[in-house]
Amino acid sequence: MVKVAIIGGSGYTGLELLRLFAGHPDVKVVAVTSRSEAGRPVAGRFPALAGVCDLAFVQPDDPSIGQAEFVFLALPHKAAMETGVKLIEAGQRVIDLSADFRFRDAKNYEAHYCPHIAPELTAQAVYGLPEVYREQIKSAQIIGNPGCYPTCSLLPLIPLLKEGFIEPEGIIIDAKSGVSGAGRAAAVSSLFSEAGEDFKAYNVASHRHQPEIEQELSLASGAPVKVVFTPHLTPLSRGMLATIYAKPAVGLEKVLGCWRDFYAGSPFVRVLDSGLPRTVTVRGSNMCHLAAAMDESAGCLILLSAIDNLTKGASGQAIQCFNLMAGLEETLGLPLAGLMP
Amino acid sequence: MVKVAIIGGSGYTGLELLRLFAGHPDVKVVAVTSRSEAGRPVAGRFPALAGVCDLAFVQPDDPSIGQAEFVFLALPHKAAMETGVKLIEAGQRVIDLSADFRFRDAKNYEAHYCPHIAPELTAQAVYGLPEVYREQIKSAQIIGNPGCYPTCSLLPLIPLLKEGFIEPEGIIIDAKSGVSGAGRAAAVSSLFSEAGEDFKAYNVASHRHQPEIEQELSLASGAPVKVVFTPHLTPLSRGMLATIYAKPAVGLEKVLGCWRDFYAGSPFVRVLDSGLPRTVTVRGSNMCHLAAAMDESAGCLILLSAIDNLTKGASGQAIQCFNLMAGLEETLGLPLAGLMP
Amino acid sequence: MVKVAIIGGSGYTGLELLRLFAGHPDVKVVAVTSRSEAGRPVAGRFPALAGVCDLAFVQPDDPSIGQAEFVFLALPHKAAMETGVKLIEAGQRVIDLSADFRFRDAKNYEAHYCPHIAPELTAQAVYGLPEVYREQIKSAQIIGNPGCYPTCSLLPLIPLLKEGFIEPEGIIIDAKSGVSGAGRAAAVSSLFSEAGEDFKAYNVASHRHQPEIEQELSLASGAPVKVVFTPHLTPLSRGMLATIYAKPAVGLEKVLGCWRDFYAGSPFVRVLDSGLPRTVTVRGSNMCHLAAAMDESAGCLILLSAIDNLTKGASGQAIQCFNLMAGLEETLGLPLAGLMP
Amino acid sequence: MVKVAIIGGSGYTGLELLRLFAGHPDVKVVAVTSRSEAGRPVAGRFPALAGVCDLAFVQPDDPSIGQAEFVFLALPHKAAMETGVKLIEAGQRVIDLSADFRFRDAKNYEAHYCPHIAPELTAQAVYGLPEVYREQIKSAQIIGNPGCYPTCSLLPLIPLLKEGFIEPEGIIIDAKSGVSGAGRAAAVSSLFSEAGEDFKAYNVASHRHQPEIEQELSLASGAPVKVVFTPHLTPLSRGMLATIYAKPAVGLEKVLGCWRDFYAGSPFVRVLDSGLPRTVTVRGSNMCHLAAAMDESAGCLILLSAIDNLTKGASGQAIQCFNLMAGLEETLGLPLAGLMP
Repeated sequence: MVKVAIIGGSGYTGLELLRLFAGHPDVKVVAVTSRSEAGRPVAGRFPALAGVCDLAFVQPDDPSIGQAEFVFLALPHKAAMETGVKLIEAGQRVIDLSADFRFRDAKNYEAHYCPHIAPELTAQAVYGLPEVYREQIKSAQIIGNPGCYPTCSLLPLIPLLKEGFIEPEGIIIDAKSGVSGAGRAAAVSSLFSEAGEDFKAYNVASHRHQPEIEQELSLASGAPVKVVFTPHLTPLSRGMLATIYAKPAVGLEKVLGCWRDFYAGSPFVRVLDSGLPRTVTVRGSNMCHLAAAMDESAGCLILLSAIDNLTKGASGQAIQCFNLMAGLEETLGLPLAGLMP
Repeated sequence: MVKVAIIGGSGYTGLELLRLFAGHPDVKVVAVTSRSEAGRPVAGRFPALAGVCDLAFVQPDDPSIGQAEFVFLALPHKAAMETGVKLIEAGQRVIDLSADFRFRDAKNYEAHYCPHIAPELTAQAVYGLPEVYREQIKSAQIIGNPGCYPTCSLLPLIPLLKEGFIEPEGIIIDAKSGVSGAGRAAAVSSLFSEAGEDFKAYNVASHRHQPEIEQELSLASGAPVKVVFTPHLTPLSRGMLATIYAKPAVGLEKVLGCWRDFYAGSPFVRVLDSGLPRTVTVRGSNMCHLAAAMDESAGCLILLSAIDNLTKGASGQAIQCFNLMAGLEETLGLPLAGLMP
Repeated sequence: MVKVAIIGGSGYTGLELLRLFAGHPDVKVVAVTSRSEAGRPVAGRFPALAGVCDLAFVQPDDPSIGQAEFVFLALPHKAAMETGVKLIEAGQRVIDLSADFRFRDAKNYEAHYCPHIAPELTAQAVYGLPEVYREQIKSAQIIGNPGCYPTCSLLPLIPLLKEGFIEPEGIIIDAKSGVSGAGRAAAVSSLFSEAGEDFKAYNVASHRHQPEIEQELSLASGAPVKVVFTPHLTPLSRGMLATIYAKPAVGLEKVLGCWRDFYAGSPFVRVLDSGLPRTVTVRGSNMCHLAAAMDESAGCLILLSAIDNLTKGASGQAIQCFNLMAGLEETLGLPLAGLMP
Repeated sequence: MVKVAIIGGSGYTGLELLRLFAGHPDVKVVAVTSRSEAGRPVAGRFPALAGVCDLAFVQPDDPSIGQAEFVFLALPHKAAMETGVKLIEAGQRVIDLSADFRFRDAKNYEAHYCPHIAPELTAQAVYGLPEVYREQIKSAQIIGNPGCYPTCSLLPLIPLLKEGFIEPEGIIIDAKSGVSGAGRAAAVSSLFSEAGEDFKAYNVASHRHQPEIEQELSLASGAPVKVVFTPHLTPLSRGMLATIYAKPAVGLEKVLGCWRDFYAGSPFVRVLDSGLPRTVTVRGSNMCHLAAAMDESAGCLILLSAIDNLTKGASGQAIQCFNLMAGLEETLGLPLAGLMP
């Protein structure tokens, strides 16, 4: 059994890690920390884990964390790098779910978040998108686990940009997220009475996931890529769909063929044979469903991509990275079938 | 035009008052107060009122309040009575949406809320259920506007208790409320990700609406009535349904006839000719829909009652009381048709 | 009182017409037809109208229809034109909510729907978007009431195209609709268990509202306009949001100024002073809320537009047209305040 | 690997069986039948199974069914017994998810459903509630898998009735179900626009799960038990909560102790240490969460019970029975952690 710890486990990504580990045959969770909940049984805060997890939350400096070979950081940005640096020094391997180690260039991070305390470490960190960086992840010391919007946007775009099958200019990403993406914080905008029966855009042309997307698209393309990115909030707890508009350099069949080749060895990306991606069919699973359509008269390629923002968009992807790092089978503990209905 | 003011208008009951007054032909809102929002346009906080309400929030001591003949208190309990006492002294007529003036006996109030600063005033106040206290409301100086659960529970029960058509012992009220009943406060339990796709009971056998229900049932029955009351939270923004179990003294036809007689002059209570009450068919309206069924073999009468918790359960009922107090037609500004779907 | 009839009133647009007429001071509904429901009380099918509408459904050839000066067609396409032609011959004025009279050129209609039986009539019909065709509507004999997606898309785009403030090429409309847009038909894809907790695209690059949008944009632009149009289904009953991407010829302030000028006399279109459009704040109202943002680095203008698909997107707009045709005030019977929460 | 077949696998209970088997280490599904879908890939109908299930639907008489040692019937009642009789004759073991083998006395079944073609078989069948009939299930030839409402109602009540801790008279079950309980049939009442934002009762005092509940309570009590049973529909896809009112013969601690003893060896029933059952915390899991409260002044015990209607209330329970029948560990393939949020 591989021993792991979760730092900052009182939010939804922590809960999702614990839900998934409950079905993982080769993992033992040795510590879950929370400053505010220390001492309380984990299943007291999260009754979904009643009978599954018999740990209590501990303080973030609890010695039990030292037993873990792998540590998952489910902390806000800034707090994550502060903790991450110490764990790395102690020789532990770190999967960070915040933005702190997602940027190759600390300056880029600093332009959108805050000063970085370990620029050399973020330069070494591996971007935790296994479908693109599988080999590097296996031996990584620290993983910057991708954001949910980047995961949902990059999986359809990267293979096509690498092959030059779409133009790098003029990409528009119209993305829609379930409300759990806003976390478990008590915010008026996340109330049932506000977000239910509502649909809206937010952070138009100013969301911090945009530079993260652009970093990875630029690497795929070999030249700087700028995108238009509009996030929306849709009344579902879990789920994310990206509708992407790009100028094609090839026909639809080549697009589909490119995806199928690129993802042949990737169990969690599925190019649909028929129909279009739906958030509910990937709910609770680590899957990404892809489809494409061509508007011939407008010369526009339309790409569709669906994930569960908490699973493939956060904790599931983190465990996928962990499986690779620990030399385990990539799919261990990660549902392939969505919870439908 | 009758001039009215709203004190504490930054929550959902305040918003609902303003939505309804937007369609009221004989009312002019002269002031809406909010300590935290003072100075901000009302439509800035509530874009649903864009183009409808051009007021800005004012401080609770703003002189404009003095112009109002009628003042609606949309404040938390305790704050409501403190403000209410002053307004009454100034000769204004008050409709209080909090619990502060719902109890005839201040001691009963104090057992469930907090010390009462004006026991004599609550003794004089009229309980604002027009279907029962229509005449008293017309001349009242101060109205204790009923709670949502009491409204939904009392309308089916009072006529039957008055007639002795059900036993006063053994009444069970299993009630279900939409999430807006918890208000616009940022609370984890009201988050979309918590309350959505969830159904649960809360405050079992300990909700503060229970003594309010018992006060009115006891008055109807002529002797002390105790009930079992279980509130639940259901994933809808607006709506409340009560399923009530009682021991019948008569048959089903007499029950329906009793209701029809009692509510013959009440435009907002409707005994359904067929089908069962649904929350969505009264959504946004001031209606209460009633139906009944008899389980003959168990000797149990089952009563069903649906309202919109923010309209008939709060602000709509307050305006219904106001219409009566101001000598206006009872239905003015109050939708009879629900927003379905 | 102006007498009106509704043909095919057993679906959601029929229900919405009746809900709105319940609050209209100058209208008397003399007949509501439904083949399948003839003889049944309207309030039996639609309990939301209990106590509001005491009509029973009649057959589509009931003589009472002849009393109506105005007839609303809430029929499927094809059936609508067959009925419409007869009513026009009988001298009645017709507001058709189907697609049958939305196309100036019957050939364009026929390319997307079916053979047209009255090409000359559709050429004469007025497209019922009052903000654009107010004067023509007043004297129209027959109105082709716009589709929901076209309404939501055209209101932000037409003023900008007329002024040349955006390029006519490269417009992308990413639109999201509530489930009521699919009507009251029993379809698996509209089930709560399918559409709830789901978000998906459908009819990508092939929706029949696209040629309707292109007709009106071409007229506004003075030259043929092609758009990319992607409709999505989002888990809310009512509401529609369009996110539109266009190449700007001017800066953001000019865009906002253009809208403000164009809609100065239009009570149902509101350019938001702050914040972004939300579907819930226009729910049940006839409002359209607009906002815009500029992605400077990408040279892309982002337009946002929200309506209630059943009100401004269907029945409310039909009544707005009717008010103009009947010489009544444009806003009569049409809510300006949305039902929030 | 144990070979199983699913007859009638095109609905939600079939889908749920396949989702759960995807995570079951010791099962091979050899056939999934559907008359209407025969020939179509299962993952074409259910994209949630893309990459998980590579079977195509076959006709109900396909020879591949003969390979299965265990057959799950996910058919409507009547069709289930017709198929079940043949399978039993062929020596296969049958888990029937319909009502056809739930009644010990075929006459009782016939009073509520239709004529029974194999009265002797239903008399021999075992009621598939493992927490009560674990030993009998292990060796059963045919299982009548309990209904969702009975499962949710019986688990809290049976231990207390067996011990005489509640009175057998006067039990009231107020139960609330998610919409998936109505299946995948295209029915107007299950539409998102009808069931969303709605809460209502249905089949009051006339639901067919009532006699099933009474059969099992009578067996537990040793004397005939009648209950009042009111089912409701609540706007969530999955989930069921029962609020049960009973007259206690003992205090609250004894109630909780009785449950804890009775369910000590039952991994899927959990008496909560704190808090109340919620549907979302058991969503997608096979758990039943229990809690109780005492209304001392009314002398009423209030029991609360939550399950996922498709898992513990249907397909999960069927697999739990299968595990016991096949000599496997009871929990194999069955999630203990709910999908929250």
